[in-house]
This record gives sequence, structure tokens and C-alpha cells, in this order.
Amino acid sequence: MEPRNPDWKARCEASFHKQAVMGTLGVSVAALTPGRVTLEMPFRADLTQQHGFLHACVVTTVLDSACGYAAFTLMPDEAEVLTVEFKSNFLAPARGDTFRFVGEVVKAGRTLMVTRGDAFAVRDGQQVAVSTMQATMMVVTGRADVAR
Amino acid sequence: MEPRNPDWKARCEASFHKQAVMGTLGVSVAALTPGRVTLEMPFRADLTQQHGFLHACVVTTVLDSACGYAAFTLMPDEAEVLTVEFKSNFLAPARGDTFRFVGEVVKAGRTLMVTRGDAFAVRDGQQVAVSTMQATMMVVTGRADVAR
Amino acid sequence: MEPRNPDWKARCEASFHKQAVMGTLGVSVAALTPGRVTLEMPFRADLTQQHGFLHACVVTTVLDSACGYAAFTLMPDEAEVLTVEFKSNFLAPARGDTFRFVGEVVKAGRTLMVTRGDAFAVRDGQQVAVSTMQATMMVVTGRADVAR
Amino acid sequence: MEPRNPDWKARCEASFHKQAVMGTLGVSVAALTPGRVTLEMPFRADLTQQHGFLHACVVTTVLDSACGYAAFTLMPDEAEVLTVEFKSNFLAPARGDTFRFVGEVVKAGRTLMVTRGDAFAVRDGQQVAVSTMQATMMVVTGRADVAR
Repeated sequence: MEPRNPDWKARCEASFHKQAVMGTLGVSVAALTPGRVTLEMPFRADLTQQHGFLHACVVTTVLDSACGYAAFTLMPDEAEVLTVEFKSNFLAPARGDTFRFVGEVVKAGRTLMVTRGDAFAVRDGQQVAVSTMQATMMVVTGRADVAR
Repeated sequence: MEPRNPDWKARCEASFHKQAVMGTLGVSVAALTPGRVTLEMPFRADLTQQHGFLHACVVTTVLDSACGYAAFTLMPDEAEVLTVEFKSNFLAPARGDTFRFVGEVVKAGRTLMVTRGDAFAVRDGQQVAVSTMQATMMVVTGRADVAR
Repeated sequence: MEPRNPDWKARCEASFHKQAVMGTLGVSVAALTPGRVTLEMPFRADLTQQHGFLHACVVTTVLDSACGYAAFTLMPDEAEVLTVEFKSNFLAPARGDTFRFVGEVVKAGRTLMVTRGDAFAVRDGQQVAVSTMQATMMVVTGRADVAR
Repeated sequence: MEPRNPDWKARCEASFHKQAVMGTLGVSVAALTPGRVTLEMPFRADLTQQHGFLHACVVTTVLDSACGYAAFTLMPDEAEVLTVEFKSNFLAPARGDTFRFVGEVVKAGRTLMVTRGDAFAVRDGQQVAVSTMQATMMVVTGRADVAR
């Protein structure tokens, strides 16, 4: 896919590091190409549900971010990204040592981008799918309140 | 709607109070009838995104809980509830003094329950819809790992 | 909700009658108010699945139309409506003498409208919910290929 | 993925050929492996919307079938498949000479199977994505009314 902004990479990284919640959750960018983003985070005992697995809310939050940044890689310079809607299926308990979140753009329109995200738990070197998302992102310009 | 468990109310309340995350977020049960649950939480500055509004992740988490408990009110005694999938549209920034989350059962099947959830921000006495969810919940029996 | 076009009603009716598929399926407009549309159709033996109930595809098509027209009632004069995405849960077999489809706007934005739709089967005077939809509609101007 | 039924292939083909609607639409099975099904259909002028492209309803119907059969390949002998819910994004007008629909299983549970579907239009040898679906299928046993 073709980026519409020559500085897409620097711009994505700068935006990511401004997102306090990603730092709070311990999420880092593992790979960044036009239309595709991989995020990673280690297991965190303080972000678990009652059975000791990563809370589904955390999985959904990071997956939404992976999809949002995948869309953001293809946006023009002045644009910001806004989540219109997402739909997630939960596939397995999020039980792992580390977690990987892959977001990719399925269709890059001028106003809307359709994305897909997959979350994996990695345990003893084995990767298991824990959630899958289909999300619609909006290219927003000129609205300070949605800057991301 | 007809509860399948005479103790549905006590059981829902007990389950809710065991959910550490609800306490952490400051969520309380405002209303509880068979097939319909209203949750409330005050604004929390430490749960905001970069513009000072409640983070969409928090909205989604509590809305999922409202839908899950709405389904749980109609479940038999031995059953637990598990989120199969949800789909959320984001309607407006979550800007308010308090937030209200209404979950209700649209269809109560034996294995699956279809629910709908609406999140509102209340500001200066005005209620604004911030997110709407459609979710499928599963009635799970005999699996300790999904106890909720 | 406030229509943005004084001729909204005439414009909706004209658009509906141009839709050949609605005529083919025998669908009529039962009620039309700003932000809310009710469509109806009689049972049709030639549109059933193998058990003699109305095919889920027909239900989804008419529900999408009800949501689309609900959004269309609130659109400015020059705009057309386009379905961005929809999500449907199937609740019960579509077994009835007549069917009713209610679409309503949950949030009317400038570019996107979030809608909800409910399909009911009516049998012996009893109304049963058969499907529920959450859909995102786009307000499109200046693109002849999406005219509806 | 592992089929749970040694006769999975013959059973899928038999079920497919009993589906009158697939014959009516001119759909054929192009590929069938455990957990993945490809369906194809030629363009049909009588199934278009007002701009002469394949109607979105037809695309959704065949995509739902591709996802359903992908799930069905992994089901035990006595089971039938039922669509719990689906969510579709529409990516481009369905303009092509032939159409290809790929359904695949993302997670095969005992009761539920999560699937993903992609619809493509093929024109002058070029393949363009027109719709993408995420769907939940149910493994149903002992209910004659859902036999598919």
C-alpha cells in the first residue's frame, strides 16, 4: 500500500509515543510498514481478570490501537484517525508471556479505512489467536478534539 | 422477561461485587431487573484520553459488563456468562460528570443471549449517547475458567 | 430529530419507489418520520429457505433498507446514502404472515449516521423479533455511482 | 485444521447441492479444504442494483454461505451449521465478470466457530476486494428446523 505522506513513519512513531495509555500498558511498536502495524506487550499481572489472564479490555484496547495506527500509516500529513466502530470476537483466554497485536488495512478510502486486527498470546514459543477485530477508521482533518 | 433462577438478583449482585475491575473503575449498579441492568460511574480524571474525556476503552469495558449482567439475570443457577463477541459504534466524546450504561437482553436463548447496550454521558443534567453496542453472550456451565 | 431538508418525505418516497428490489420483494413503507422508518412485506413462498421460512438474506436486505432510509430522512437535499457496514444477529426463524422492519437513527453526524434496525415476524397477531442490526450509513454527495 | 468427520468433503458437497438458493444464484464450489471454502459465481445482470453492479445482498448471501461451509467442513457428522451473527464492511462496488468468495475458520470451538470471509470481483483478470465479513457460526445438533 502507498503512504500519502513521505514522513508517515516518523509521524506514526511520534503519535504513538504521545499516547500515554500505550506507555501505561507497556506496549511497544514491533513493526511498522505502510498499512500494517505490529504491537507487542509483555504479560502484566496487574492487568488481569479474575483467572490471571490478560483482561479482554486490554486486548481490545491494544487491538484498536494496532488497527488505528495501521490506518494512520496511510493518512495524509494533516489528518488524524478516529475509530468509527469495531467488532471483536473473543477466541481464547489471553494466557501468555507476551502478546502480539497485528493491525492491517483492508481498504484505504479517502474518508474511511477498513481494518482487521488479530491478537495473539505467545506462551512457550507457541502463538495462539485470542481475539480478532474488524474496525472502521475515519480520516479526520481540522478537528482538534480528535487529535490522536 | 422471566428469570430462570429465583435468586437471580442476589446472585448478580454477588458476582458484580467480586469483579475487582468494577470497583477499580468506581462502577455501581443503579438498577437491576430481569433482562436489564443499569450501571453508573462518576467521571474519573485518571481514566481519560488525551483530551480529558473518559477513555473509549473504559466505556467499552463497562458497556460489555452491562450487557453481560443483563444476560446473567436470566441465566440458570449454575451458569456463568462469557462474551462471544461485541460490536460498538462510537457516537460522541465521553464528556460528562457521570456516565450511565444500560444493557438489555434482546433475545434469551438457551445457549446464547443477544444483548444491546447504550452508554450515556450526563453533563449539567443533559444525557448524551456516547456509544452503542450489540453483543452476543454465552451461557456457560461446568467450565471453571470462565467463572465471572 | 430534525430533518435537514424540508422535502425529506417526498424525497424518501420517490427514492424508495425507484428501488426496483423493494418492488420485487413486495415491500411497502408503513411509516416514515424523521429518523425512523417502518417497512412491511407479506410472506412470500418464493423467498423462503428450505424450511419454508423467509430467507435470512431477504430479512437482512430489507433491514438494511429500513436503516438506510431512516438515515436518508435526515440528509440534506443533494446527498445520497451508502451502507458502510452492518452487523446482524439472527434471533429466530423468520416465520410469519407478514414482516415488519423498523430502522432508526441513533446518531446523525455530518458524514456518518449510526442506525439500528429490528425485524419482526407477525403471526396470528403476535410479533416476534427475528433479527437485529447495527449499521453505519454514509452521507455521500457528488458521486453519481452511489445514488440510491 | 482437522476435520472431525472423515466424510466431511462428500457431506459438504451434498449439503451445498441441496441449497436451492446457491443454484438460483449460479454459485459453484471452486475449492474445498478443511476450514476453508472458495465459492464462485459469474456476473448476472438480473441480480444487480440500479448502477448495474452485483447487489450487495447477493454478495452478503454468498459470503455468509462461504463462511458457513468453511465452518461445516470441521463439524461432526450429525451437526448442522447456523449463522449466529455476521458483520460486513462494504469496500467497493461489486463490478466484475466473475466473483470469488473465500470463507475460512479462524477458531473452531465445540459449540461456536468464528469465521472470516472475503468477497472479490474479478474484472479483466484483476481481483478487487468488495466486501469483508466476520461471522460467528453455531454447531447445532438435534434440531431439525435448522438443517442446512
